Parts: sequence; C-alpha cells; structure tokens
Amino acid sequence: MAEPNAKTRERLVAGAADMIRRRGLSATSVRELAKHSGAPLGSTYHYFPGGKQQLATEAVEFAGDTIARTLDRALERGPLEGLRAFLATWRKTITSADFRAGCPVLAVSIEDSADTAALDAAADVFARWESLLERSLRRHGAGRAEARQIATLTVASIEGTVALCRAKRSAQPLDRIRPQLEALIVHATS
Amino acid sequence: MAEPNAKTRERLVAGAADMIRRRGLSATSVRELAKHSGAPLGSTYHYFPGGKQQLATEAVEFAGDTIARTLDRALERGPLEGLRAFLATWRKTITSADFRAGCPVLAVSIEDSADTAALDAAADVFARWESLLERSLRRHGAGRAEARQIATLTVASIEGTVALCRAKRSAQPLDRIRPQLEALIVHATS
Repeated sequence: MAEPNAKTRERLVAGAADMIRRRGLSATSVRELAKHSGAPLGSTYHYFPGGKQQLATEAVEFAGDTIARTLDRALERGPLEGLRAFLATWRKTITSADFRAGCPVLAVSIEDSADTAALDAAADVFARWESLLERSLRRHGAGRAEARQIATLTVASIEGTVALCRAKRSAQPLDRIRPQLEALIVHATS
Repeated sequence: MAEPNAKTRERLVAGAADMIRRRGLSATSVRELAKHSGAPLGSTYHYFPGGKQQLATEAVEFAGDTIARTLDRALERGPLEGLRAFLATWRKTITSADFRAGCPVLAVSIEDSADTAALDAAADVFARWESLLERSLRRHGAGRAEARQIATLTVASIEGTVALCRAKRSAQPLDRIRPQLEALIVHATS
C-alpha cells in the first residue's frame, strides 16, 4: 500500500496536471497549486523543492503515463481500437470540463521557458505515445515509414483538435478527424 | 498610405501576436507588450483600452488574416499546393524562431479565461482556415463530408504538429505528417 506521503504527493501532481491543462504553464506555481489543491503551502514546497519546473515536469509525466496506459491497453485489440480509445479519452476530458481543460503536455510545449526540463518531458511523452501507435501499426502490417507517419499524425492531430474543440466549445472537431484517421489506418494495415 | 498612428497600432498588434505565440496568453499584458515592442506604455494603453483581451483578440485576428492570405493564394493552384504552403509557413515560423515560437491562435485557445472575446476570435480563425481548405477540396471533386473532415484534420494536425516540433526542437514532425495528408487529399480529389 502507498504511504500517506506518497498519496499526498500524487494528489498534488494530479492537481498540477489539472491546473496546467486548464490555465497553461505561466499561470501555474507552487503557491497556486497549494490554493488549487487545498494543501498547505509548506508541504507543497516540501514535495516540490525544484519549484514550477519540477511541478510541470511531474505533471507532464503523470498525464503521459495515464494516457499511455489507456492507449496501450486498447492497442491490444489493434490500431483502430487504439485510435478510438485515444479519441474517447480526450472527448471525456474536454466535455467533462465543459471545454475548459485540454492537454498539459501540449500546454507545456507552447510556452517558452529558459529551463527546458518540462519541455524535455513533453517531448518524451509525445515520442512514447507515437511509439505505441507505431509499434501496433507495424504489428498489423503497416510499412515502417507509413507506421511512423500515421503515428505522428494521430498524436499531433488529436492534440490540435483538443485545442480546436476548446476554442469552438464543441466536440465536433473530434468527430470530423476520426473517419480520415481510420481510413489511413485501414489502408496501411490491409 | 497608412497614417503613422495606424502603423504604430499595427506594429503593436504584430508585437502582441509575437509575444503570445512565444509565451502564451497569461504572460502577455499591455505592460509587457510595451516592453517587448519598445513602445511607450501610455501609447500602448491608448491603442488598447480594452487591455489584454483586446490585445489578444486583435493578435489572433492578425495571425488569422496573415495565414489566410497565404493559404488562399496557394489554394488557387489546388488543395495540395494549399497544404504545402500551409506547412511551409509553419516550418518557417518555428525554425526562424529556433523552435521557441508557435501559433498565437492555439495559445489563446488553451488558456482558460473568464472573458471569451479572444477565444471567440480563435474559433473564427480556425473556422476560416478550415473553410478555405474545404472549399478548395470541394472545387476539386471531394465529397461534402470528406472535404470537411480533411479540412479539419489538416488545420488541427498542423496546429498540433507545431507544438510537437517545439517540444522536440525539430521540424521532423512536419515532414512526417505531410505524406499522409497528401494521400488523403489525392484520394478525395481523384
């Protein structure tokens, strides 16, 4: 069983991911996280002595792991099911937050910062999601270049679509990209 | 000819777009814009009495118009040429800024704000880019649903890819998505 300390820490990391996916990186700080999570400021500083970059890095890794687990499980039933689970996860995230939350990995990627720890973590998360999709496509018969290209297109287009959905306050863009991504997967694996 | 005032104003709007595409919306303010553009604070407030939301709205419209003009011109030579010009514009933006700048329209879309003026402008810009692509696809023989889907996928995937490029500090993701988007366009219009 997890120690109480580990639980507090995990709750704070999940809180940081939630703040970043709503407000972006600039508006996130250890102080704001304490407020957002209802945790004492002292304990928040205790868990994140590296401050905002540490928080952001761990939040990105947390979100990366969560999605990778869902994706990995769905990909056992093939790349089409993987795509559908990926889309469904994002639909749930944005609709349950009334279109006011997106992806913390994207948020960290688009804000310039002198410290690149969180940015490096974001690059790793994107690469990991791409590699899960690529491997599944390869296993189902796609050629090497095609598998790579479709994997990158899938991750990039879903990330971009989440932003379109937030701007439009509608999940319609997710419905629009699905048939075309499915067609590419079917074509590459048949 | 433009009045000197109109020129100052335009320069400030371009400066705001540049700040937002680098740092995001939270880190942007009338005060920061004056610093970033080397303009007197008083005149900056004079041009943007509505403060940050006005700045952000005009910056989004400015970026939207700039890209729409490039896209519209390239689409005269067909949807494939439109796609290539769209990709080339973004490649130039991110590489010339050493991967430290992206799209201000995306940046505004992913930060929660009580005032939705800039968000509404972002939704309009995405819809305008999609509609330019959709019309060109239709004109070249694509079916209605297909044209809409490919247009949304193109805009969303390019926006997402710019974020991937920033995280990875590489333009490779743009090279990866191109062949698959081209295949969809060729298939829909042949």
